[in-house]
Amino acid sequence: MKSKAIFYHAGCPVCIEAEQNVANALDPEKYEVESVHLGNDKSRLNEAESSGVKSVPALVLDGTPFHINFGAGIEDLK
Amino acid sequence: MKSKAIFYHAGCPVCIEAEQNVANALDPEKYEVESVHLGNDKSRLNEAESSGVKSVPALVLDGTPFHINFGAGIEDLK
Repeated sequence: MKSKAIFYHAGCPVCIEAEQNVANALDPEKYEVESVHLGNDKSRLNEAESSGVKSVPALVLDGTPFHINFGAGIEDLK
Repeated sequence: MKSKAIFYHAGCPVCIEAEQNVANALDPEKYEVESVHLGNDKSRLNEAESSGVKSVPALVLDGTPFHINFGAGIEDLK
């Protein structure tokens, strides 16, 4: 069974670069990748924060957050 | 042909978590992953800095650096 990978971003240049590189580099045999634009989909902000996401772009693998470079703080997306 | 992915770390807990999750999540069909411990292998520091690595853990995909969370600054490893 595949694990869940959620890539949170906000459409910023740093986010797009991370998505095109890191998110797309994940093993499709292992991960089902979902991409969430927190700037457009604010209803997912609580979920992102609950997973420990502090900034975007961030990749949550099996519930563990990994912040990739820095595009924007979560507070700036509210 | 596979692309090169280099995971730079320093053996710190944040580094190990990132390696076990992010580095191991990469698609083995696309990437040949090398793991470099900059604390032990200081001869690779220049190469890491040339790729734009400012802190570890960091993942360099096709020459582009992605900093994952924060374990230690490069300056602290010299």
